[in-house]
Amino acid sequence: MTDDSLAALSRRLQRLEDERDIAALIASYGPLVDSGSADDVSELWTEDGVYDVDELCLDGADAIRAMVRSPAHQRWIADGCAHFVGPAKITLTGDDAIAVCHSLMVVNTVDGFVVRRATANHWHLERQDEGWRVVRRTSRVLDGRTESPDLLAAGAHGRRLGPVDRAQE
Amino acid sequence: MTDDSLAALSRRLQRLEDERDIAALIASYGPLVDSGSADDVSELWTEDGVYDVDELCLDGADAIRAMVRSPAHQRWIADGCAHFVGPAKITLTGDDAIAVCHSLMVVNTVDGFVVRRATANHWHLERQDEGWRVVRRTSRVLDGRTESPDLLAAGAHGRRLGPVDRAQE
Amino acid sequence: MTDDSLAALSRRLQRLEDERDIAALIASYGPLVDSGSADDVSELWTEDGVYDVDELCLDGADAIRAMVRSPAHQRWIADGCAHFVGPAKITLTGDDAIAVCHSLMVVNTVDGFVVRRATANHWHLERQDEGWRVVRRTSRVLDGRTESPDLLAAGAHGRRLGPVDRAQE
Repeated sequence: MTDDSLAALSRRLQRLEDERDIAALIASYGPLVDSGSADDVSELWTEDGVYDVDELCLDGADAIRAMVRSPAHQRWIADGCAHFVGPAKITLTGDDAIAVCHSLMVVNTVDGFVVRRATANHWHLERQDEGWRVVRRTSRVLDGRTESPDLLAAGAHGRRLGPVDRAQE
Repeated sequence: MTDDSLAALSRRLQRLEDERDIAALIASYGPLVDSGSADDVSELWTEDGVYDVDELCLDGADAIRAMVRSPAHQRWIADGCAHFVGPAKITLTGDDAIAVCHSLMVVNTVDGFVVRRATANHWHLERQDEGWRVVRRTSRVLDGRTESPDLLAAGAHGRRLGPVDRAQE
Repeated sequence: MTDDSLAALSRRLQRLEDERDIAALIASYGPLVDSGSADDVSELWTEDGVYDVDELCLDGADAIRAMVRSPAHQRWIADGCAHFVGPAKITLTGDDAIAVCHSLMVVNTVDGFVVRRATANHWHLERQDEGWRVVRRTSRVLDGRTESPDLLAAGAHGRRLGPVDRAQE
């Protein structure tokens, strides 16, 4: 019985550790992308992970690395930029997890700091040998398009997204 | 002694799990309210829970559900809106908890995204048979009114609010 | 073996508890500073802790307490102000920890709420007899100055800052 009890405690601990790891991964995204740490950003995803964002769909870690190194992204850093990612609500199911959160892109302009966009984020993560990695992050600007509230609802309920939820408008 | 040790570990685990559950509840509020998930929002509260916000006091889960379904709230969603809730500091005491955090309401306008309000949030939660629920959320805009800093202080110290702290100006 | 197993579980728990304590400390900063809780803010730091922020370097808990009590800070509170601190990514190493996060200073003005600054934050904390305390918080506005991305990268990698990283421009 004691062995069973120990195993049960260890499983509860493992769940908290998994959630801690996922929260830490998501909390590291903003600091890494705003410091231009291209390799580190790309390594948050699996090798064939996807970052599906409004205006583009980055397919694979190489494409994500290239986005961070792009002149457009480097320009945001040079001018001053915060990818401010909120606390995520995480739904863990074994080796699979769904997380949902808001994010703000705050940029420095000649008129001071402005919120360039507020975004709905749906994260699908999987446990790999080397730890948790993002399989697909789907982000949509909260500008009234219907898929943004849809992905918030799916994320809050711990559901994966179907193709319809990610439709480009 | 081993049984005692196991019980002590289990109690420490329980505390972390409770705090995780409360943080997840608070982190789910924004995604649920911005997706118009009226039933889910109302179920974060107890049946007679209160959402005491500047301009109105919603008394009971039914009133909270109706707020999410109201034309005014649906209009925010249709135009684009983020209820961005920050990480909460939680003070747990048995079956009772106080949490405090900031929130921003960021809305999409014809002139781009603007911060409509920055708000102080004081959460009082209780453990129910079905898990943690909000007994009272008290929110006041940080526009210089004195009860907003007061409720931040109370929340950071893990104190409940008295009627005075919630005075309407 | 059971004693070893119990000790191993306890160590894993201790780590989660440490990270919880550090996250709670950081989450309490905003509510405490926006409520003018000068003593409480200063007690987040060690007695000789440092708050190294762009325009000034506060050396010791007394200087931090005086900052909160200053007419300039009290003015922010009187007008309405949110020091909105994001979720931190924490790297724990025994009795030492590095945390990194963004923060927004949102202020109430005659033209409504505006983001006055978006800031990169690097926290160095140490375990004291009375719990975790800040040894040095280094904050730089994300306005294009190079040390701001540098300290985000250092924080995300769990590295301490050297003098160069903190250079004033």
